[in-house]
Amino acid sequence: MSSYPVSPLAVTLPELCPVAGVKLASVQAGLRYTGRLDLSLMEFAPNTTVAGVFTKNKCPGAPIDWCRKILYRGKARGLLVNAGIANVFTGQAGFDAVKYSAQAAAKTINCTPEEIFVASTGVIGEQLPYQKIINYLPELYSKLASDQWKETAQAILTTDTFAKGFSLKTDIDNIPVTIQGIAKGSGMIAPDMATMLCFVTTDAKLPATVLQKLLNEKVKTTFNSITVDSDTSTSDTLLLFATGQTPNTEINDIDDPRLSNFSNALEKLLQELALLVIRDGEGVTKLIEIKVEGAVNNESAFKIGQSIGNSPLVKTAITGEDANWGRVVMAVGKAGEPADRDLLSVAIGNIWVAKQGEVLSDYDQDKVNKHMQEQVIKIKVNLNLGEGHAKIWSCNLTQGYIEINGSYLRS
Amino acid sequence: MSSYPVSPLAVTLPELCPVAGVKLASVQAGLRYTGRLDLSLMEFAPNTTVAGVFTKNKCPGAPIDWCRKILYRGKARGLLVNAGIANVFTGQAGFDAVKYSAQAAAKTINCTPEEIFVASTGVIGEQLPYQKIINYLPELYSKLASDQWKETAQAILTTDTFAKGFSLKTDIDNIPVTIQGIAKGSGMIAPDMATMLCFVTTDAKLPATVLQKLLNEKVKTTFNSITVDSDTSTSDTLLLFATGQTPNTEINDIDDPRLSNFSNALEKLLQELALLVIRDGEGVTKLIEIKVEGAVNNESAFKIGQSIGNSPLVKTAITGEDANWGRVVMAVGKAGEPADRDLLSVAIGNIWVAKQGEVLSDYDQDKVNKHMQEQVIKIKVNLNLGEGHAKIWSCNLTQGYIEINGSYLRS
Repeated sequence: MSSYPVSPLAVTLPELCPVAGVKLASVQAGLRYTGRLDLSLMEFAPNTTVAGVFTKNKCPGAPIDWCRKILYRGKARGLLVNAGIANVFTGQAGFDAVKYSAQAAAKTINCTPEEIFVASTGVIGEQLPYQKIINYLPELYSKLASDQWKETAQAILTTDTFAKGFSLKTDIDNIPVTIQGIAKGSGMIAPDMATMLCFVTTDAKLPATVLQKLLNEKVKTTFNSITVDSDTSTSDTLLLFATGQTPNTEINDIDDPRLSNFSNALEKLLQELALLVIRDGEGVTKLIEIKVEGAVNNESAFKIGQSIGNSPLVKTAITGEDANWGRVVMAVGKAGEPADRDLLSVAIGNIWVAKQGEVLSDYDQDKVNKHMQEQVIKIKVNLNLGEGHAKIWSCNLTQGYIEINGSYLRS
Repeated sequence: MSSYPVSPLAVTLPELCPVAGVKLASVQAGLRYTGRLDLSLMEFAPNTTVAGVFTKNKCPGAPIDWCRKILYRGKARGLLVNAGIANVFTGQAGFDAVKYSAQAAAKTINCTPEEIFVASTGVIGEQLPYQKIINYLPELYSKLASDQWKETAQAILTTDTFAKGFSLKTDIDNIPVTIQGIAKGSGMIAPDMATMLCFVTTDAKLPATVLQKLLNEKVKTTFNSITVDSDTSTSDTLLLFATGQTPNTEINDIDDPRLSNFSNALEKLLQELALLVIRDGEGVTKLIEIKVEGAVNNESAFKIGQSIGNSPLVKTAITGEDANWGRVVMAVGKAGEPADRDLLSVAIGNIWVAKQGEVLSDYDQDKVNKHMQEQVIKIKVNLNLGEGHAKIWSCNLTQGYIEINGSYLRS
């Protein structure tokens, strides 16, 4: 974990229970950080299925290449994660590091390398000392246990200031199942097809194709709807493992009504984890919820929401606790999406401050100013053009962000 | 001018000479600021032609609507500018403010309202007290003089910390002509079709159609190639006035070789003014020059350059004087443009630090670190995919930016 003060928006890690078919362990490998856990292994029961979404950044790390290459098989037996070095822009040597680590982990777990998923975050451009990782595999394997969730949630962090996890019980056709995940942020966060690292496991029995379709759908309104700084990581990885340990009915279609509880629970879990990432955004002191309504379609609403959520001027206004709705108007306009200034309405803290292109002279300014002092700031815009809507979560931009990112290499 | 310390990248206002056919004046109208010049009038000789480019923000101010509406006529006799209140998102009342001001200025100058251009910058959403402006017109008119450039360069500023102007002598077919302009920044700067306020005048005789084509071309590599904070203003206005006081040959085609000196001089002038805006970016301490080469085409190179120039993580790394080329790689990748990680090369301060997807183990780190301490930081990327190239100018992101923009309404 980072040496920076814990985020004022931090949430205590809830109790994370065993998930049938998942064993995990973490060690202090000293890959870049010292005196903290930084290397983790998860082992999954045979026949575990897997789905994944990854960054759309065109310069992804070697671990992303590896995971993409093996994902189509839909099978997973292991996951190897390190924090501190991202193994990005490391050329052939970086790819070799992934391959040799996966081979060694496969030998340890007794499976094929193509069943070992890998993920790394941290500095870009440094070679991963993979021999060190390989040397720690026996220790990791000997420590594998079903109760090591808290340690692993801590081991995957980089500049994060608190560990992030969430757990839910749900059912598939009345058979109880568990979904549980851990995640890390906390800078370079503007996902496009997933974000940073997030590992979700369930004991449910679901084919990889169903898992993948579910994940593709649910990532849109969760991890892909958050932004910290508009910078899309080269390492974004979201993996969903289903160990198949529960005797639930076989489901082969994501629209099967017997899957709806699970589907809703997965969305809820991903949203909770995504919001935890925002709550630990670098330098964050405010969480921003942006609702866009009345856009020409949902895609347009999403782009407008992103434009507001990424605007440095909106984000700094919120830091200053100024209800500067004029900057919201600017951000709507700069999105390049259909917008008619003279139909545009803006609400702050659920109070309309401007309607149809003009400030409302009689809105309750005191109430709006009071809302700006809260930790969760709500912005709503209505384009009054159509039915398109979207919800985006962002955070404010503070001195802390500059401090953290202006001295990252030296820290 | 702002109460913030003068930018460390400030440039002293050069001597601005009279431009034949241009008279100007500024007064302290107390529209929002007190104790400083904030309202200006320019009068142009009869038959002055005009060209303009404006923000592409979909929520532009009333002055933009007005200028767009009258621009097609290509004729200008006056320009009325105020600082402090942007007259944006002010509904019908805002448009009336523009119309009545233009009508009053037209009466003062003895022309039609459609020959009066108007521009406003400052806070969004506040009504412009246009009657005050109208009341100051007689005083402004009585003060009109050809030597009031310095005062007017100061009068148009908002959060700027220094006045910006540039002047050039050139010729059209061997007849000497002058081009001279003033500009203001300095936040909400990511132009898309122009930027903030910039007023350029020349004594050359050129048809409005030629002026407009020239301006459209030259704005691309100058004002549209700079970015401070990725936020596109609702007030961006760049106007070019040609008073026709010199007896130069009539030119009707921008490709006429007799226009090439003028064309080059105009580009030079716009570039100098654009760089002055960057040099006064809010909280700036470093100017960043980004060269993109080897992209699939120029448009793609431009988008990649913007992605680097707007990345908060690149900008904060430069604040921290860290040669964090990994963040440059990330920013190339997130642009969404064609890029092959394994062909990508990155240079800092003209020293290649990474080539073809991998860090160079033997690059001169000391020299690169020394470059990072300079005021002008040079970043070059080569995609090695094609012939596309672009040049973008940006600035770093500092505590000062947060300070200025977190307290704007209260200052």
